[in-house]
Amino acid sequence: MFTCSKERMQDKISTFSTFGDAGHGGITRYSLSPEALQARAEFVKRMTAIGAEIKTDDVANVYATLKGSDPTLPAIVMASHCDSVKNGGNYDGILGVMGAMEVLETVANDKIPHKHNLVAMIWTNEEGSLYPPAMMCSGIVCNDYLPADIAKNFKKENMLASKSILDPTKTFGMALEASGYKGDEANRLNPKDYKAMFELHIEQGPILEAAGNDIGVVTCVLGMVNYRIKVYGQADHAGTTPMKYRHDALFGAAKVLEYLHTELDKLDPELVYTTGEILCHPDVHTVIPDYVEFSLDARHEDPRVIEQVVSVIENIPKDVEKCKTGYEIAWTRDTVYYDKQLVDFVQEAVDELGYSNQKINSGAGHDAQFASYMLPTTMVFVPSKDGHSHCEPEFTSTELCTEGASVLLNAVLKCDAAD
Amino acid sequence: MFTCSKERMQDKISTFSTFGDAGHGGITRYSLSPEALQARAEFVKRMTAIGAEIKTDDVANVYATLKGSDPTLPAIVMASHCDSVKNGGNYDGILGVMGAMEVLETVANDKIPHKHNLVAMIWTNEEGSLYPPAMMCSGIVCNDYLPADIAKNFKKENMLASKSILDPTKTFGMALEASGYKGDEANRLNPKDYKAMFELHIEQGPILEAAGNDIGVVTCVLGMVNYRIKVYGQADHAGTTPMKYRHDALFGAAKVLEYLHTELDKLDPELVYTTGEILCHPDVHTVIPDYVEFSLDARHEDPRVIEQVVSVIENIPKDVEKCKTGYEIAWTRDTVYYDKQLVDFVQEAVDELGYSNQKINSGAGHDAQFASYMLPTTMVFVPSKDGHSHCEPEFTSTELCTEGASVLLNAVLKCDAAD
Repeated sequence: MFTCSKERMQDKISTFSTFGDAGHGGITRYSLSPEALQARAEFVKRMTAIGAEIKTDDVANVYATLKGSDPTLPAIVMASHCDSVKNGGNYDGILGVMGAMEVLETVANDKIPHKHNLVAMIWTNEEGSLYPPAMMCSGIVCNDYLPADIAKNFKKENMLASKSILDPTKTFGMALEASGYKGDEANRLNPKDYKAMFELHIEQGPILEAAGNDIGVVTCVLGMVNYRIKVYGQADHAGTTPMKYRHDALFGAAKVLEYLHTELDKLDPELVYTTGEILCHPDVHTVIPDYVEFSLDARHEDPRVIEQVVSVIENIPKDVEKCKTGYEIAWTRDTVYYDKQLVDFVQEAVDELGYSNQKINSGAGHDAQFASYMLPTTMVFVPSKDGHSHCEPEFTSTELCTEGASVLLNAVLKCDAAD
Repeated sequence: MFTCSKERMQDKISTFSTFGDAGHGGITRYSLSPEALQARAEFVKRMTAIGAEIKTDDVANVYATLKGSDPTLPAIVMASHCDSVKNGGNYDGILGVMGAMEVLETVANDKIPHKHNLVAMIWTNEEGSLYPPAMMCSGIVCNDYLPADIAKNFKKENMLASKSILDPTKTFGMALEASGYKGDEANRLNPKDYKAMFELHIEQGPILEAAGNDIGVVTCVLGMVNYRIKVYGQADHAGTTPMKYRHDALFGAAKVLEYLHTELDKLDPELVYTTGEILCHPDVHTVIPDYVEFSLDARHEDPRVIEQVVSVIENIPKDVEKCKTGYEIAWTRDTVYYDKQLVDFVQEAVDELGYSNQKINSGAGHDAQFASYMLPTTMVFVPSKDGHSHCEPEFTSTELCTEGASVLLNAVLKCDAAD
């Protein structure tokens, strides 16, 4: 077994955390921003230093390739992203890039033999924080392979026109032209020239930490449904309308929320569901709300449980507190299972390294999920302290980050050997 | 008894409804907008035609004075506003102006003798829709007489700087200068030159209609408290955080809403309370909310009931669904009782006219409420169809509007005679 260098990993974590440093422990590093370009330049500098060849594709995804002994074989790629949400942490995405770099640096330094080209890769604009949607560039690159209802949301021409949420006069296309990283469409990740993709990532949840395990062997991305739940009341004056005449849509929504919690909590305990967004109209303190809408996001590996969730939604009482209710489906995603052979390589690697581990699923979406429609793909998770992510307290120790890279290295080498 | 003219009232309703006509039954007529200036010009034209003298004060309140037989006596004023909310109706505010005009027209046409000067008046910017706050110019004029905690919110210099919510480069002061209606501060309504103020208004609620009464004899403006209720959770990823680890501030808020309804419904049935505004952070469908805040507006005539409301708020459980709760007082208003003698004049007038009527309180705030701190004041209500107001379906029949004006006329004449 080979292992990666904790010192080298710490150096990368310290360096990359300066690009977009928000001044209180976290970063804001929007895709293709000056801060993200600093991170890309550092990636290129370090990868060039170990003899990797740099290429970019037409949406600025960056590929650093270390030649194998038989360059005619399809390459094995390790990829994640270097952009963050606003006031995000120092690990989400960038750990997968640093882990890929660390693997190539270990291979180069230790002169580890390998047949296939090995590639460290940066996906552009995974978060979609400045230019929605999230997972934009994996969506574009994998578009031809995605299910039709997802593919329609990731047309390149629409993505190029995606407007900055901070300055609507700027588009993703303009940022791409200005970045200096726009390359050739022929360089895109594709199933002919690539054999497999691995992504190392923080868990972004509390499961590994709670179980005391260092490594998560990821098996799937959870299936999900996303609904908009609607409650229709009647707007009237707060001071002049007796209680018995009221049709208060916010009170109706509170009752629907409680119904959903009561009913959904009866289903499988692995189910997660979230009502994260709420809209209230007219949202004035002196007016009884006439319309409230909230989101319901529910995720589970088993489609039968998702069907039970849909049934609960369909059975929301039609009249609640003298308000009418309704719902609309926003989108669905079937459970995406990662490649069984690659999952086995990860499991063997972590067991041989002797790190505590468990099988885990991914509740969050990742670029790997889109890539998996196109070529064999899997992921490796390391724990997130207190389960926090997408916030500045996000933290994973350098030891665990290095263990994650070592698992990645050995799984990739098993993949390299398996022809 | 004298009565007003239904035909003349209908003509006014039809004419004023064209100023700011939004095209589907209602109006948008922001204070000092071109549409509001049309309404003011029509007021000036009609009042000048009956021999009234026009004056304006320094915040563009307009006074049309019909001389009495003893002009040394203090004047009796009838006032309301001609501005509307966005997509408001054809009655809120403007009915009180049209009613005042109709009274003066009747007095002039029927040569009804009166000792005191009689004044029809337009208050500037009652709604505060374009330039907050509401009741701005009655607040400025009555400032010296308001309770200290209210007065501090209506300093003239701050009001002049109030920014347009549509175009923050424009201020109320700029609109005032451009209006052509800015006059002399010495012309302001004041307790030395004025004996009493009456305001005719639509009820804006369903009580009169439900009771089958034509006229509401208003006795007070309800006391109120306004709180911000706060729920503190923990933001985490919707897909990666098991239910048992969650601190969902929106679910916590739903439970607090339910607690409030349960407890407040045990209090006096006349109590009205409203939770009209809600804020959810970060309000993203894939993130568990970490903070939710909502408004609680509660109104009742009896301060002991308001005290019970405060006690219910103070006893919100400190921990709800693993979230912390809190509250903050936004503002309070004690019940404002209208002048007993003026209320009696209204009651006598309506009884003598033989219109069905009842005593009623005002849940909404009106310019009359501020005026009442300065000089004897009262109000007359007419029914609102289905209780609707601040919306385009707002409606009161011309018959009822005319009855309201007739009550106003006879109450004013009783006031005129009572020296």
